[in-house]
Amino acid sequence: MRILGVDPGVATIGFGLIEADRGSQRLLRYGVITTPAGLPLSNRLYQISQDMEELLSAFHPDEAAVEELFFSKNITTGIAVAHGRGVILLELERAGIPVYEYTPMQVKQAVAGYGGAEKRQVMLMTQRLLKMGEIPRPDDAADALAIAICHGRSATSLLNTERVFDPRKYDTR
Amino acid sequence: MRILGVDPGVATIGFGLIEADRGSQRLLRYGVITTPAGLPLSNRLYQISQDMEELLSAFHPDEAAVEELFFSKNITTGIAVAHGRGVILLELERAGIPVYEYTPMQVKQAVAGYGGAEKRQVMLMTQRLLKMGEIPRPDDAADALAIAICHGRSATSLLNTERVFDPRKYDTR
Repeated sequence: MRILGVDPGVATIGFGLIEADRGSQRLLRYGVITTPAGLPLSNRLYQISQDMEELLSAFHPDEAAVEELFFSKNITTGIAVAHGRGVILLELERAGIPVYEYTPMQVKQAVAGYGGAEKRQVMLMTQRLLKMGEIPRPDDAADALAIAICHGRSATSLLNTERVFDPRKYDTR
Repeated sequence: MRILGVDPGVATIGFGLIEADRGSQRLLRYGVITTPAGLPLSNRLYQISQDMEELLSAFHPDEAAVEELFFSKNITTGIAVAHGRGVILLELERAGIPVYEYTPMQVKQAVAGYGGAEKRQVMLMTQRLLKMGEIPRPDDAADALAIAICHGRSATSLLNTERVFDPRKYDTR
């Protein structure tokens, strides 16, 4: 199964494409979509929608995993990121790709083995699991790959029905 | 000038279309777009994008005014609303309609004469300015009309360059 992980944003959106089978993940592609600061938000959102559309028609993922937003820190940034995340979810839906959502803690748990893992540990495990020569850069792309691995491990697990968080139920706000 | 005011959201999006000339506003249309609770967020966002597209091609506004988000209260709701707002801004941009943003305080100031006006005062002034038989319902539609009036008064003012807040500069996050 081809999984696209997305780390949402407005200035920088990370993406990571992997092929996941039960217990294994293989790296296909990763990178970032960026939009220039200084442009009106609506224009940046339009660029994101165009780039997502292009990316989805080039990569044809079977499923997508998008990080959930949590804001204990900067609400203003959070609001901006949520605008971008809305557009990303829209383009995934428009392309008919099932969307799953995971919290940062679930991603850490799935990739590094425990929810309190440090960012660097998650990145090192991402590198190791995908047999990469070095930690993927930039950070947003590394995060997106970790999110893809998280979904790959959940979606292809034999214990799926017992263990796995149902992301859809958190969607109905 | 034909102005579309939008009160953003996910469950309910208010819209109000007015014709504004210097010092006068005339009501054209108002209402709400709604999406059913219980559907995944990505699906609701898709419905919003479709409805916005339809609405824009039916109404052909020259400019649009969208309320800014401020969250002192419920951050979770704010994050959801920002997803919807992102899709709304995207569809306006896609249709080539210039987008202006106003804070709730600016809307109150423009419609009721001072930024600390109560919601009911703003609604009564909206009704009066648009020569309506009663306060527009639901609230989201009334809010959208107030936002449209706010932009109409700013955009068509002779004192434009001196007095008016430049919404574009708040876009560049």
